[in-house]
Amino acid sequence: MPNFVFIATSLDGYIAKSDGSIDWLSEIPNPDNSDYGYNDFIKNIDAILMGRTTFEKVLTFGSWPYDKSVFVISSSLKSVDKKLKDKVEIVNGSLESIMKSINSRNLINLYIDGGKTIQSFLKKDLIDEMIITKIPVLLGNGIPMFSDTGIELKFEHVNTNIFSGGLVQSHYKRIRN
Amino acid sequence: MPNFVFIATSLDGYIAKSDGSIDWLSEIPNPDNSDYGYNDFIKNIDAILMGRTTFEKVLTFGSWPYDKSVFVISSSLKSVDKKLKDKVEIVNGSLESIMKSINSRNLINLYIDGGKTIQSFLKKDLIDEMIITKIPVLLGNGIPMFSDTGIELKFEHVNTNIFSGGLVQSHYKRIRN
Repeated sequence: MPNFVFIATSLDGYIAKSDGSIDWLSEIPNPDNSDYGYNDFIKNIDAILMGRTTFEKVLTFGSWPYDKSVFVISSSLKSVDKKLKDKVEIVNGSLESIMKSINSRNLINLYIDGGKTIQSFLKKDLIDEMIITKIPVLLGNGIPMFSDTGIELKFEHVNTNIFSGGLVQSHYKRIRN
Repeated sequence: MPNFVFIATSLDGYIAKSDGSIDWLSEIPNPDNSDYGYNDFIKNIDAILMGRTTFEKVLTFGSWPYDKSVFVISSSLKSVDKKLKDKVEIVNGSLESIMKSINSRNLINLYIDGGKTIQSFLKKDLIDEMIITKIPVLLGNGIPMFSDTGIELKFEHVNTNIFSGGLVQSHYKRIRN
């Protein structure tokens, strides 16, 4: 701990179209060539934890975008391409045991990415901070950011930044009493 | 036209708990006794259009909260309590014919309220402006604000206000090309 989420969603809460495509994100006008706070966020992160679906999406980007250790949660993947073997590690087991193992290597600030992975962490109340960027579009359907977890979790609003293109980025911290 | 939405949702996009309760909204600390922009919003509204579920929820509030004409969309309701007969009118038919009939009485700026009603208007691209207030809580489940409409709708971000208690209120206008 702590575990962070940094993600963009449509106004209706989707992180991708139904086919997994995220091209609607790159269609947003970005005259200031903003990184939408990503570099400030990622510099405090020690490692990235994602699911297999997100990992396979990242592989389609062409070049590997991360300079941090990446852990891919998967029980089906057995190995990664040898070009990535120093960058990516496959892990499985309970989220608690995965976290404990990663934290024990002094990797403390974790970036939790991918819809299903974020949802499984939220179900166990294992997310500490969320930075959510709202794109001013209703997609109408797609892959949702949140799922029915059945548990209510209160957050504190830290701050909100507005970016050109009408992106509203809010930073929330989990309140635990 | 234009049709407005003014609504509060949880971070995971719910407007009420599964049983319809909205008590979590009144639990938000409100030291400034803010109306969260409601009075500024409602003074520009000519009439309110809602579904039966929302109407029946409003009836539980004890006193009638609106000083504008209210239209309740319902094919099952036949009449309203006589105390409300000058305030509430039951309408049915297509959304277009309902709107046309209301607009013809010089009631132009309509406040569209209630989850299902908002969703049915969005499905026909009949919402022009949305003022959405995000409450810093994940409810975990409940009645969603948005549904799968299957159509993509682009909006322009007008402004965002932050209220004490960590409420983030963003105003969006539909972009029609």
